[in-house]
Amino acid sequence: MPIETLLQAVKDGSMDIATAKEILSRAPYEELGFAKLDTHREIRTGFAEVVYCQNKADDFLVQIFLKLYKAHGEVMGTRCSQTQFELLQPHLPDLIYDPVSRIAKIMKPKEGEGLIAVCTAGTADIAVAEECAQTAEFFGQKVERFYDMGVSGLHRLLSKVDRLQKANCVVAIAGMEGALASVIGGLVANPVIAVPTSVGYGANFHGLSALLTMLNSCSNGVATVNIDNGFGAGFLASQINRLVTRKE
Amino acid sequence: MPIETLLQAVKDGSMDIATAKEILSRAPYEELGFAKLDTHREIRTGFAEVVYCQNKADDFLVQIFLKLYKAHGEVMGTRCSQTQFELLQPHLPDLIYDPVSRIAKIMKPKEGEGLIAVCTAGTADIAVAEECAQTAEFFGQKVERFYDMGVSGLHRLLSKVDRLQKANCVVAIAGMEGALASVIGGLVANPVIAVPTSVGYGANFHGLSALLTMLNSCSNGVATVNIDNGFGAGFLASQINRLVTRKE
Amino acid sequence: MPIETLLQAVKDGSMDIATAKEILSRAPYEELGFAKLDTHREIRTGFAEVVYCQNKADDFLVQIFLKLYKAHGEVMGTRCSQTQFELLQPHLPDLIYDPVSRIAKIMKPKEGEGLIAVCTAGTADIAVAEECAQTAEFFGQKVERFYDMGVSGLHRLLSKVDRLQKANCVVAIAGMEGALASVIGGLVANPVIAVPTSVGYGANFHGLSALLTMLNSCSNGVATVNIDNGFGAGFLASQINRLVTRKE
Amino acid sequence: MPIETLLQAVKDGSMDIATAKEILSRAPYEELGFAKLDTHREIRTGFAEVVYCQNKADDFLVQIFLKLYKAHGEVMGTRCSQTQFELLQPHLPDLIYDPVSRIAKIMKPKEGEGLIAVCTAGTADIAVAEECAQTAEFFGQKVERFYDMGVSGLHRLLSKVDRLQKANCVVAIAGMEGALASVIGGLVANPVIAVPTSVGYGANFHGLSALLTMLNSCSNGVATVNIDNGFGAGFLASQINRLVTRKE
Amino acid sequence: MPIETLLQAVKDGSMDIATAKEILSRAPYEELGFAKLDTHREIRTGFAEVVYCQNKADDFLVQIFLKLYKAHGEVMGTRCSQTQFELLQPHLPDLIYDPVSRIAKIMKPKEGEGLIAVCTAGTADIAVAEECAQTAEFFGQKVERFYDMGVSGLHRLLSKVDRLQKANCVVAIAGMEGALASVIGGLVANPVIAVPTSVGYGANFHGLSALLTMLNSCSNGVATVNIDNGFGAGFLASQINRLVTRKE
Amino acid sequence: MPIETLLQAVKDGSMDIATAKEILSRAPYEELGFAKLDTHREIRTGFAEVVYCQNKADDFLVQIFLKLYKAHGEVMGTRCSQTQFELLQPHLPDLIYDPVSRIAKIMKPKEGEGLIAVCTAGTADIAVAEECAQTAEFFGQKVERFYDMGVSGLHRLLSKVDRLQKANCVVAIAGMEGALASVIGGLVANPVIAVPTSVGYGANFHGLSALLTMLNSCSNGVATVNIDNGFGAGFLASQINRLVTRKE
Amino acid sequence: MPIETLLQAVKDGSMDIATAKEILSRAPYEELGFAKLDTHREIRTGFAEVVYCQNKADDFLVQIFLKLYKAHGEVMGTRCSQTQFELLQPHLPDLIYDPVSRIAKIMKPKEGEGLIAVCTAGTADIAVAEECAQTAEFFGQKVERFYDMGVSGLHRLLSKVDRLQKANCVVAIAGMEGALASVIGGLVANPVIAVPTSVGYGANFHGLSALLTMLNSCSNGVATVNIDNGFGAGFLASQINRLVTRKE
Amino acid sequence: MPIETLLQAVKDGSMDIATAKEILSRAPYEELGFAKLDTHREIRTGFAEVVYCQNKADDFLVQIFLKLYKAHGEVMGTRCSQTQFELLQPHLPDLIYDPVSRIAKIMKPKEGEGLIAVCTAGTADIAVAEECAQTAEFFGQKVERFYDMGVSGLHRLLSKVDRLQKANCVVAIAGMEGALASVIGGLVANPVIAVPTSVGYGANFHGLSALLTMLNSCSNGVATVNIDNGFGAGFLASQINRLVTRKE
Repeated sequence: MPIETLLQAVKDGSMDIATAKEILSRAPYEELGFAKLDTHREIRTGFAEVVYCQNKADDFLVQIFLKLYKAHGEVMGTRCSQTQFELLQPHLPDLIYDPVSRIAKIMKPKEGEGLIAVCTAGTADIAVAEECAQTAEFFGQKVERFYDMGVSGLHRLLSKVDRLQKANCVVAIAGMEGALASVIGGLVANPVIAVPTSVGYGANFHGLSALLTMLNSCSNGVATVNIDNGFGAGFLASQINRLVTRKE
Repeated sequence: MPIETLLQAVKDGSMDIATAKEILSRAPYEELGFAKLDTHREIRTGFAEVVYCQNKADDFLVQIFLKLYKAHGEVMGTRCSQTQFELLQPHLPDLIYDPVSRIAKIMKPKEGEGLIAVCTAGTADIAVAEECAQTAEFFGQKVERFYDMGVSGLHRLLSKVDRLQKANCVVAIAGMEGALASVIGGLVANPVIAVPTSVGYGANFHGLSALLTMLNSCSNGVATVNIDNGFGAGFLASQINRLVTRKE
Repeated sequence: MPIETLLQAVKDGSMDIATAKEILSRAPYEELGFAKLDTHREIRTGFAEVVYCQNKADDFLVQIFLKLYKAHGEVMGTRCSQTQFELLQPHLPDLIYDPVSRIAKIMKPKEGEGLIAVCTAGTADIAVAEECAQTAEFFGQKVERFYDMGVSGLHRLLSKVDRLQKANCVVAIAGMEGALASVIGGLVANPVIAVPTSVGYGANFHGLSALLTMLNSCSNGVATVNIDNGFGAGFLASQINRLVTRKE
Repeated sequence: MPIETLLQAVKDGSMDIATAKEILSRAPYEELGFAKLDTHREIRTGFAEVVYCQNKADDFLVQIFLKLYKAHGEVMGTRCSQTQFELLQPHLPDLIYDPVSRIAKIMKPKEGEGLIAVCTAGTADIAVAEECAQTAEFFGQKVERFYDMGVSGLHRLLSKVDRLQKANCVVAIAGMEGALASVIGGLVANPVIAVPTSVGYGANFHGLSALLTMLNSCSNGVATVNIDNGFGAGFLASQINRLVTRKE
Repeated sequence: MPIETLLQAVKDGSMDIATAKEILSRAPYEELGFAKLDTHREIRTGFAEVVYCQNKADDFLVQIFLKLYKAHGEVMGTRCSQTQFELLQPHLPDLIYDPVSRIAKIMKPKEGEGLIAVCTAGTADIAVAEECAQTAEFFGQKVERFYDMGVSGLHRLLSKVDRLQKANCVVAIAGMEGALASVIGGLVANPVIAVPTSVGYGANFHGLSALLTMLNSCSNGVATVNIDNGFGAGFLASQINRLVTRKE
Repeated sequence: MPIETLLQAVKDGSMDIATAKEILSRAPYEELGFAKLDTHREIRTGFAEVVYCQNKADDFLVQIFLKLYKAHGEVMGTRCSQTQFELLQPHLPDLIYDPVSRIAKIMKPKEGEGLIAVCTAGTADIAVAEECAQTAEFFGQKVERFYDMGVSGLHRLLSKVDRLQKANCVVAIAGMEGALASVIGGLVANPVIAVPTSVGYGANFHGLSALLTMLNSCSNGVATVNIDNGFGAGFLASQINRLVTRKE
Repeated sequence: MPIETLLQAVKDGSMDIATAKEILSRAPYEELGFAKLDTHREIRTGFAEVVYCQNKADDFLVQIFLKLYKAHGEVMGTRCSQTQFELLQPHLPDLIYDPVSRIAKIMKPKEGEGLIAVCTAGTADIAVAEECAQTAEFFGQKVERFYDMGVSGLHRLLSKVDRLQKANCVVAIAGMEGALASVIGGLVANPVIAVPTSVGYGANFHGLSALLTMLNSCSNGVATVNIDNGFGAGFLASQINRLVTRKE
Repeated sequence: MPIETLLQAVKDGSMDIATAKEILSRAPYEELGFAKLDTHREIRTGFAEVVYCQNKADDFLVQIFLKLYKAHGEVMGTRCSQTQFELLQPHLPDLIYDPVSRIAKIMKPKEGEGLIAVCTAGTADIAVAEECAQTAEFFGQKVERFYDMGVSGLHRLLSKVDRLQKANCVVAIAGMEGALASVIGGLVANPVIAVPTSVGYGANFHGLSALLTMLNSCSNGVATVNIDNGFGAGFLASQINRLVTRKE
């Protein structure tokens, strides 16, 4: 209810002051005791909530999957363990599970719009890439995957430049030294979202090396999200891609 | 010259093989000895080159300002010291200097398009914010400034939410604990670019605290650039905003 | 025995010099060989000892629980594993265990005094919050819980401001970017104790991000304890709340 | 104006809807363009604003000192350089300057209430300690100073324990290894605020060593603020002390 | 064979040049292929070799225990797991194992000389302390143990000062904030060896906090060894104590 | 096909333009969907691909081993677990496994050329050393091993100097403080490749100490690879040694 | 006055209770307001106080130099700037200054006892070494200097081994990779004090590399002090050397 | 004098035993008191000593330049300030100075042999590159320079691949994210020496970002030296190049 309507109702006498005050202060969330479900989020952001499964208590996980599925007719969870999937599946028989991305979902058929390119440096980065790509697809975006294009064999990347340049947003996912983001950033005109991964060992310090590489990129138009944060990159890429598709 | 045209010319005999080979391998840059001017950049990215003045030798700085001004009828340099401005000005009498952002520029009049919101947590972050805002304006974007909206006095930010929600992209610039990015990220639907600044002391470790805050944001749709990198944020915001304005 | 009394007794001859010297140098603790139980602590601080169970050898754990229960008719242990609880329970049949906070306790009924507000940013922070809240309750304070108020959905927090402002001390518990402490710090007049948690991944570096955020808070009146240190926050909040309740 | 009054006025017709809406959304701050003065702060926190002078532009510094002096009849600035003081003094002839704490102030005479103990480990920590002590005094608290009580000569500290135990709050300020906070924390019953300083060299890493020491204190009831943050400690100590004095 | 003797033999003709050259270049170690046993060590340092068991392959572990036992009639291994002990025991039936210090040894009866004081801040530091104390005892030194003397209950430490002052060397072992070393350093006249332990959590960063504390000690006469390095401290303390006992 | 040949064929009409364009853009790799096998690598570098087994999915691991074995009649994988070996062996009955270096391989008999010296400080570094040595041997180089030459018993190293000086390249592998590389660097005239290992504990910070030691070596001619990167050192040593053997 | 004497005096009536109580609580230091001079230190440690000049206020510096000179007939200050020396000299005409070690002193003639060896890796470490050596000499120890013995030219060190082995304590001072301490530690039987210096650049991180090297030394009998802490090493070496000389 | 000759002379009686012993123990360096000139170095390594000027005392700098010039007829110093050059020049009138590389030298004419390629990512890296290139030239190697080939404009690098592939060793010098080393490593067959530079700001942490990038390179055949260590890279490249040229 917009504030003018409310104030008009007070003026009209169709709503008493106590009620108006209560409505004005009422928080647009659902109090569950252990959590405050932010039911207002989809209105604010345009994207329904996705469940971050890791470390969630079993009871809560089931409750929230059911609640979201009921509200939207679809639901998606990230960082979902095999065990958590097995817990959820009896409640949601249509739930499917992808062990690579660790995503569990029931998803309505959608025709993706626009174009997001999701790239990885190596095969070990695919888990993060799939979390990213499937997130964007869940939000209704069209995604093209370009895997194993690390800069140590540059010709693999160069052969795909034409297609990368067509995307509204490119996601560059890499561990070890993370140079992929800079090289792509120098070749395309649209925004590049860089996702450092924890792939590597020793002086990669669990993803720090790739993170610093991406933050210090000599190419313009590159922004970075947290280490291994495929979901965050997929969300942001969807926001960017939506700026274009909204208008088409 | 597209590759089909070239190959056709070889077939036609209108171009000999040596020439064709030379063209195919010719790099689209200008060799200056000390530098390889990337004259191809504007074609690739749509934005002309901006000069990063810091640590550039005097001679090179003058050469590149003149060359770019001649090519485009306008020119902009970031991180330009007062001394560097005084060096450049005799060569470019129309050059103006802003000591806050440390930007020197000659800029054609432009009507900015779309909308980018540039926000700071405190007044000490304004230097970075102006580097960001003026970069976007130089690239032809419309910018609105929202300064001194730190979360310690939340009502200042809340009073501007309506306007922030209208922007195609919001840039959140903050030092110290850098919480501004997360709070804005929770309130708007379009992408947020977070710029940590080195403002603060002690355990801010020259911007590390704000950087980590922004990388770990609990709000979706937030990506981060390097500490104090106002130019990078302005460039990226322009790319995002352009996705919308291109189509209008 | 006050020093005047002792000196008087020496003067009177009712105490010989050797005894006086021995008393003056006698340490107010109980030597167990492997430990020196600080039986003087409650006198100094007003709060009985709480057992930090982690890594304690089984024998010692049982001994100290029994000794403290016998002395006070109640006892509490933090960071108590399920296994440790099962070890203790045969010795203390009334012992109850909370697997969320990992607290094992026998507690006399108390009417909490004053008011401490314990807040979390997310549901994953509840384990630390319960360690904090139950510690304060064990020390006789009144606690109100405000869970899942992360800044990505600010309306949840704003709807509780009135109640937070009534507390003598607010504990703000958050992982990831830890912005909750700064936002609350800007809204209340009494002290805020910030507890960073290790919740998150990647560039949170096991709680470092939230720790730095809280140390660099732009809000006044915020002090920080160790990562995941719910007990420490509960102890300190109790000391602060007691300053008020002592006088009522 | 309380929300009931406003809604009543709308109902009465004594205020039209547009006005009501405008008031509801009006932010309680003063827009200066470069800054949003948080004039609401004193109402929220009970303490008037103190100016953080470092890096403030000259014009703004003068404006805000004048504005605050006019509003309150007193004014205080921290981290004020000698040069800044000389800039301000012609505008505020009664302004006095303390080069040790780098505080510039005009302060009404006050009778401090309650008791805050401000302690340092060494003489090099006195600059931070004076910033803390004078902040608390400006806010109307009574402060006692205990300087140069480092644990390498423990008898100096032990001789003052009685007086420390009388304070409502003890501030422990130390650089190098920062052990002072733990030792005091074990000796007093009221809260201890620990302030690490950057005093030292080498592996102190600009205050990191003392910071980590204080965060890991084995004593209960110790909370930590940023490195060299004397003002923050003074503010928080004032909040804690006020909990007692308010009631007397 | 001293070099003069060798040269004399060459001159005498009792040794030919090839032999002399071979002796001069012969290394005083035993080549095992996978290892070069430094049989020269005891001659150089005066202390027999102690086996660092961790990560040693099973075969090698057995070989070296047998070889050293045969040579000296006693043998000691540190960081020996229960499993390793069970592997060794059939070969060395007199071997005894202490699960606290993780030391396995066969030790000749010795009357310890001089005095080394081994102190801990808490009970969790006892594992490191026993590694230290038993190492020194194996090398023939007299050790007195002072456990659980953390600075949060300072009277426990103060009651032992007289005895600490009698030691030729004091080892101060502490985790968390590690303040024990500085406090002891201020109370005794002989060298203090500080051993940081990894005891603690969160911002202790696996022992970094105690390590930095000890390196930055405000007390003179404190030197630090690696985190959890009880053996190293015991070795060094033995060297220091031996300087005194050698002469008695 | 060289570019001149291709252009000539276009001119001749023996190749049509579409075909020529397709060839020019065709990437020299094999697309497997989940990976882009860089079949071009051996041509570029002269060394066949070695499989990095860690974290590779089972199916992919088998496929690539078979493919490489078929192409070359030999194959080698590093960081291969016992489980992975058992997965591979049924497909490649001649595969042998070395649990120390964790290398699985089928290798043609070769006569190594030139000389690479592979040295370790301790026995715990042998796993990394064998990964290095066997990599070089797989690439056809001659390797001599010098194990357990840590600087704490310098005579062991000094007795081998003559042989180290004969190598075209020396690999110095060490954990803990990593001093071996500097000492060897001061004794030989050819390049030294330093490999820090994660051997040690506490303040070695998982290999950081040895890494920094090697990067800061006071000896000239020392370059460093990633922590525990035996393969990388073996590859680089092979490149250096090949510069000599190619010409013999 | 020993405690028995005092108690006896109370018993005798020769001292009244108030006086006795006052004496018992009187701290053995001199209160200067800004400092508490620890006049008790020499009694506790056997070494007179040395002034750490850095950052001391001018007035205090002069006062303390004069007070110490008057008490002992000699005085020494470390980290004394040229400016501070010029401030002090008019008050103490016999004061001499060494710009390399930055020590200012008036020292009685002494015949050094025992033997301490002070070694450096390079010439840039001499400043720290002289602070160490002159500290030990001021405390009456005999010192021999061995400079520029870095491990990149090992023969320089090897030629001095005989003399190093004669010292009761060896101080090893090195920047860059700091390997000197380990090499010496392997060659001598008495304690080695390692002093990392900030000499170097880049990945030495202001002394961190040498610090970690020394803490992780593979040689036994090595303990480490703070970066550039020549005074601390000199003090500790004096304590160790004194254990021997006291008895002679 | 070889050891056989010496022993033979002893046997012959042409050298007495005392003399022989003295020679055997005589160190091949020149003792200057403050330094031990390693005159043996050229014999060991084949390259004459280069002076590291930074922080060298004036007197010593002059002495060593004169001594080396006299010995070799040429001399080179790195990290030489303008002031130091002006100090040296009166003593060595032929000395020339390059303010970019900060090298001062007198160099005999040489015809460089073999081929080393020295590459930079940007113009700001040229200072380090010239230190590298001129070092190699001083040691008699042939160097080709490839400057400003950063990966943000990849075509600049690709146009030079043919020439890079001809070098015996490629030096890749880059700051910011340092991706250049990985990209080159994927394109050439000979060793790549990576030099991280401190060029950049913010999260480059003075070169740490480029350093980690290079250590974690996904390309084989890349080894890393210290941040900004142009000399070290030039020395190592010369050693590698010499392996080839020695044989021609």
